[in-house]
Amino acid sequence: MRLKLLVAYDGRPFRGWQSQATGDGVQDLIERAAADICGEPVRMHGAGRTDAGVHALGQCAHFDPPGSCRLSEENWLRALNASLPVEIRVMRVRRVRQDFHARFDAKGKHYRYTVCNGSVLAPFEVGRAWHVPGVLDRSALSDALRLYEGTHDFSSFSARRRPVDRDATRTIRRAEARWKAGGRIEMNFIGDGFLYKMVRILTACAVRVALGKESLGRLQEMLENPEPTQARHVAPAGGLCLLRVWY
Amino acid sequence: MRLKLLVAYDGRPFRGWQSQATGDGVQDLIERAAADICGEPVRMHGAGRTDAGVHALGQCAHFDPPGSCRLSEENWLRALNASLPVEIRVMRVRRVRQDFHARFDAKGKHYRYTVCNGSVLAPFEVGRAWHVPGVLDRSALSDALRLYEGTHDFSSFSARRRPVDRDATRTIRRAEARWKAGGRIEMNFIGDGFLYKMVRILTACAVRVALGKESLGRLQEMLENPEPTQARHVAPAGGLCLLRVWY
Repeated sequence: MRLKLLVAYDGRPFRGWQSQATGDGVQDLIERAAADICGEPVRMHGAGRTDAGVHALGQCAHFDPPGSCRLSEENWLRALNASLPVEIRVMRVRRVRQDFHARFDAKGKHYRYTVCNGSVLAPFEVGRAWHVPGVLDRSALSDALRLYEGTHDFSSFSARRRPVDRDATRTIRRAEARWKAGGRIEMNFIGDGFLYKMVRILTACAVRVALGKESLGRLQEMLENPEPTQARHVAPAGGLCLLRVWY
Repeated sequence: MRLKLLVAYDGRPFRGWQSQATGDGVQDLIERAAADICGEPVRMHGAGRTDAGVHALGQCAHFDPPGSCRLSEENWLRALNASLPVEIRVMRVRRVRQDFHARFDAKGKHYRYTVCNGSVLAPFEVGRAWHVPGVLDRSALSDALRLYEGTHDFSSFSARRRPVDRDATRTIRRAEARWKAGGRIEMNFIGDGFLYKMVRILTACAVRVALGKESLGRLQEMLENPEPTQARHVAPAGGLCLLRVWY
């Protein structure tokens, strides 16, 4: 039997999704919770990594409970949440076909990056939004985001030098900003997949354009001449949230 | 000189707004921050108390900085936030006329109570929403809230037995529920003032009606025959937030 989990977490206390030698990856904690329930080790497979401090409302994972461990979906939900810290919640458990794979079957992801443009960062935004005081040019921000849409080699927007044989071509179906009350700006990035730190780098670059610190032409150049360099600007992890994975 | 502060706080780490013998009221912390800046004691006057664990996005307060302490509004904002914990933020500082009083001049308040009706409480809602699983009757909830609107003696909906000479008549201009995505329900209470724990008791009673555990008739009775009794149902503090004070 294979189960698919929908997982939400506050990324602050954890070292990202992926299993860590230190045991404080979100994956480690869910694996330990499942192992406690089953009495034997369990391996979780996530849709993708999220970095330390990045949040999720819609991370997906799958695992195969050992044959000896027969619980209903509802009881798995209860049992996992009973032993997980409150910062991690399994929101849904569903039985899936045996060949479903949380990572390889993922067709797309929706990330949201939140910026707070007010003069003071409100208490509930600490660790959840990037505080950018200063005047932001609304249409420049939209123009920058629109530039990202489509299929490009995003090598210039990844923090990791990739082996030459690894393709950095990705398709962004949507990149847009929504201006909310109180100086809150939500940037939505929907695409088939994202490179390491790519959303945070795309955000940082677009915000620099909106602040007048970078030109739209420079962004265009980075897209047209993909160069796997060390990105110089990365928006803070706390502003990012994985909202949804599509299958 | 008199200054008016707009204050936001995450209520979780504090014992409510009001000054405590233990020094961990929000008021204590702002008074200490101001005293550190001025080098002499400062007294803050809030628009009203909020209980331990209750949040605020729009609490108001006023104080008179000592004549020796001349700072611009902007510098007061920076200096106060520099010495306050991140869970308390002064969002705005404005000079007001010398006879302005944060409490006595308040004409109305807007409280929001948040309920989460999903089967699992998401990580970011912990301590910020009341988790009510189960089927809620949407129109029964609206009917209950509508019953509260208008001018009534709310003695039955206060947790404190009031001295007979104290008037418990209040006017609720608006009490309504907004159903958001993911089972989130935001209840807005707008009125000229609220008794001790009144919003949390009104919420608990309305939710009980929506769950079918209490009848609308019983609520009507409690309104028509105000009896200052110990309220038996009080919604948890963490779901409540003071959004705005009107002057």
